[in-house]
Amino acid sequence: MHPDFTLHNLPFGIFNTVNSEPRVGVAFGDQIIDMALASNWAIFDDFLTNKQKEAFEQPFLNDFIRLGRPVWRRVREVLQLALTKPTLQCQLPAHAFVPMAEATMHLPVQIGDYTDFYSSIDHATNVGKMFRDPANALLPNWRHLPVGYHGRASSVVVSGTDIRRPSGQMMPKGATQPVFGLSRRLDFELETAFIVGKDSPLGTALTPADFDEHVFGMVLFNDWSARDIQQWEYVPLGPFLGKSFGSSMSPWVVTMEALAPFRVPGYEQDPTPLPYLQETNPLPNLDINLEVVLATSTGDADSGQTVISRSNQRFLYWSQAQQLTHHTVNGCNIRVGDLMASGTISGPERSSWGSLLELSWGGAEPLALANGDTRTFLEDGDTVTFRAWAGEGEHRIGFGEVTGRIVG
Amino acid sequence: MHPDFTLHNLPFGIFNTVNSEPRVGVAFGDQIIDMALASNWAIFDDFLTNKQKEAFEQPFLNDFIRLGRPVWRRVREVLQLALTKPTLQCQLPAHAFVPMAEATMHLPVQIGDYTDFYSSIDHATNVGKMFRDPANALLPNWRHLPVGYHGRASSVVVSGTDIRRPSGQMMPKGATQPVFGLSRRLDFELETAFIVGKDSPLGTALTPADFDEHVFGMVLFNDWSARDIQQWEYVPLGPFLGKSFGSSMSPWVVTMEALAPFRVPGYEQDPTPLPYLQETNPLPNLDINLEVVLATSTGDADSGQTVISRSNQRFLYWSQAQQLTHHTVNGCNIRVGDLMASGTISGPERSSWGSLLELSWGGAEPLALANGDTRTFLEDGDTVTFRAWAGEGEHRIGFGEVTGRIVG
Repeated sequence: MHPDFTLHNLPFGIFNTVNSEPRVGVAFGDQIIDMALASNWAIFDDFLTNKQKEAFEQPFLNDFIRLGRPVWRRVREVLQLALTKPTLQCQLPAHAFVPMAEATMHLPVQIGDYTDFYSSIDHATNVGKMFRDPANALLPNWRHLPVGYHGRASSVVVSGTDIRRPSGQMMPKGATQPVFGLSRRLDFELETAFIVGKDSPLGTALTPADFDEHVFGMVLFNDWSARDIQQWEYVPLGPFLGKSFGSSMSPWVVTMEALAPFRVPGYEQDPTPLPYLQETNPLPNLDINLEVVLATSTGDADSGQTVISRSNQRFLYWSQAQQLTHHTVNGCNIRVGDLMASGTISGPERSSWGSLLELSWGGAEPLALANGDTRTFLEDGDTVTFRAWAGEGEHRIGFGEVTGRIVG
Repeated sequence: MHPDFTLHNLPFGIFNTVNSEPRVGVAFGDQIIDMALASNWAIFDDFLTNKQKEAFEQPFLNDFIRLGRPVWRRVREVLQLALTKPTLQCQLPAHAFVPMAEATMHLPVQIGDYTDFYSSIDHATNVGKMFRDPANALLPNWRHLPVGYHGRASSVVVSGTDIRRPSGQMMPKGATQPVFGLSRRLDFELETAFIVGKDSPLGTALTPADFDEHVFGMVLFNDWSARDIQQWEYVPLGPFLGKSFGSSMSPWVVTMEALAPFRVPGYEQDPTPLPYLQETNPLPNLDINLEVVLATSTGDADSGQTVISRSNQRFLYWSQAQQLTHHTVNGCNIRVGDLMASGTISGPERSSWGSLLELSWGGAEPLALANGDTRTFLEDGDTVTFRAWAGEGEHRIGFGEVTGRIVG
């Protein structure tokens, strides 16, 4: 029984087996409920037409998400009821339960636009200290708005996809001419992301109060970064090829409803943000444990794995609702399936930093691994896995994992 | 007879009339050839199946583009033949010709990712002089790689769509606290863009020689910019809300085949780029005239219009093939419908600068208009129109226009 996928969770994803095409599934324990089959159960007829049920047969969640928040909530509630009452559960067609071990997971949504924020104050401070001025690590705008940039949507891949070490142009320290070659400073970034659940038209600004209506759920996200490529290219227009070679996403989308019991107060913001960015929700942040495991290709399975960071979603200075609000304040439209990532989530302690750039302090202080190896940046054969969960036991809401192995 | 849409041009777009759903059309003079109808003509049966012909009934060009370069070329050649020989032309169904005046144009492609480059050396130099160091206007990386960034795809709109003046956060000159309000430094950026015609898988680097195979055609592109929002937000991760409130695209996609006669030598590049970026095509650039017309809402139609810039595609330092090559050198995948824009195309003379930021030198030197008005940045009611063409008379290859009016 997978501890992440309790009755209180029921995340949505896209899977297939050797016998089926990609379709919508719901994770429950070690099983996947095949929604293309389960939705034929009579109880779904109360609120879904046959036409609407076709959304469960699609290779992305977008059509299901477009059915709207009342439908997402109802589907989850009906399943919770059915899985709780044996008399109901036995009405669910038995062949709608697929062992996870027999399924292949796919990218859950067709992403329209992918935006990456930069909302952890400890991460932004660490980066500022390393690359700019230790005395003025945060740039003047940072505490006034959630800094963000557009990322590449085409290269977002599902967990388990190998990540090829990118080549590119770099300016080595002390060199006078750039060189071309494989990145030597390949890194992960510990992030989460939320998925837009409802369009807003061009010209419309959303407010923090619109968040619940417009957001479907959350995933784990690894914004792989080639620091040497990024450092040479990023002025003045931001990250480009240092990021666009691949970003990994966990396959199960945990709904905002499932996460609601884990809402916590926001980060104390000083100065007070401008009125348009002010939270109305007294609990705008989330208490979600985050963990990074690095496994090397040397050593046995146990000694080769090291938990190299333990962080938490609550370390974000800017809340998700503030991110969404800022993103649309200029009238920018959003679409179902848009992905908005947090930026690297680092906490105040070194053990909670969310990238090797920080953990090895720019490569100057190698990180010791459990098997005696050290790392500054990622080597070929290394596998990075993020895990995330809120709560405990039968109330645990887990994300599963996002994992990727570096190949040369 | 529209001078842009000669027999040698035949650009593709998406249109509808009061009697039809959006579908593929080809511009010819003042008419649109309705390809959903014209493709039933027997001569198309030689190389298109009925299934393939369904691509002409779609609301975006993507499915047609996916049929591949031999098909794009063949369709254009067949139409050129048919429109040249009266005996053939009369075999084309008469109702397949729709007067442009009766048609509504739509966004021609479903854009996957939109990338904006920064490839005009005169533009980058002007901006560097204004915002950074006049003595070192170009940043160290600029002459070594085509700087680019990811833009927002959702807010790309078709020509003719009004552009709402965005609100946002700004730090006025001399202020110590940011303010929220309507942008006061709203600008256009004169750009062109090419549209990807063939996917490349993640992990594959393209070379300049792959350009012809992977690019379908070109459009005019206005990358509207709110300079005050942009200036406050853009460090360290690049442009975001200063751009994402809207970008306008011309509706007719001019094929690279139509533009082939106007290929010219590339900009002299010093230093020589790294080998992966070196051109193999002796004529990597294009001689395309570009023109910006500003019309104010005051005055009559004639006196209210001023040509405020005359530029040319050949002023680009980095060629389109170099842009595509650089974009994929890290293995980033591209997809049919991806949009890659040039960045503002300014020439060496002030009369050829491609933004008001440059033309008014950051607002310090107001621009005189034909009707006696002046402009530093755009005012509500102003309409900006770009036009572009190569060649003359019956050999002219024109882009039509991209136009947009600022509304408050």
